[in-house]
Amino acid sequence: MTGQATITTLTTEECWEVLADRPVGRLATAAGGDPEIFPVSFGVADGHVYFVTKPGSKLVELVVNSRVAFEADEWTEQAAVSVVVKGTAEMLETDADLAQAEAIGIIPFVDDGKNVWVRITPSEVTGRRLTR
Amino acid sequence: MTGQATITTLTTEECWEVLADRPVGRLATAAGGDPEIFPVSFGVADGHVYFVTKPGSKLVELVVNSRVAFEADEWTEQAAVSVVVKGTAEMLETDADLAQAEAIGIIPFVDDGKNVWVRITPSEVTGRRLTR
Repeated sequence: MTGQATITTLTTEECWEVLADRPVGRLATAAGGDPEIFPVSFGVADGHVYFVTKPGSKLVELVVNSRVAFEADEWTEQAAVSVVVKGTAEMLETDADLAQAEAIGIIPFVDDGKNVWVRITPSEVTGRRLTR
Repeated sequence: MTGQATITTLTTEECWEVLADRPVGRLATAAGGDPEIFPVSFGVADGHVYFVTKPGSKLVELVVNSRVAFEADEWTEQAAVSVVVKGTAEMLETDADLAQAEAIGIIPFVDDGKNVWVRITPSEVTGRRLTR
């Protein structure tokens, strides 16, 4: 297959289509210069990425009001698609924000009712498709 | 499903079994306090994680001799497994190191022959299984 692969840059619209289609992504933080990575169930709405996590978790501690990088991808034998969202994360606290987040219908993998909602406001959304 | 989920900590051996089984992971870096995340094709050997990337890529620039966090996961309807490796990345340069890395048989998604090999030496390997 050497030499037959192509790399395509996704449009912003295509990036959001990929994000809307994937249930799980990974969040990277860099608090104190130390990289951390977490898998999260997520959803998208109105140009933001939303996910749920647990109160008191390390993720909550690291993510609040900090810059994050978030990635979702899909792989088949023929093609790989990856989208990266960079932006700022904030914990949702107002009733209006929480109602909007809950309306997205994300299903946490462990749903014990104790959830914290986090919203990423993107500064940059990029994506690539590799086809072979 | 509320309240029926269980979270299990994986043993180190189980973590390596998960890593050995997954073709794709995501690498997080924190150079300059700015988080970055990259999907990579990877393999494991002798207690290290190996992956290939392209010469001159942003990943190479960020990863060399720096602390990284690497994650691989697998999701089904019933269970989610995630393993995180923290450690230090280095670019392989000696013939002996390159021969060892190439023997793992990682297949880069875009295989145009221009590869840089990176090895992560773990300081910590942790994993969790969520069952619902």
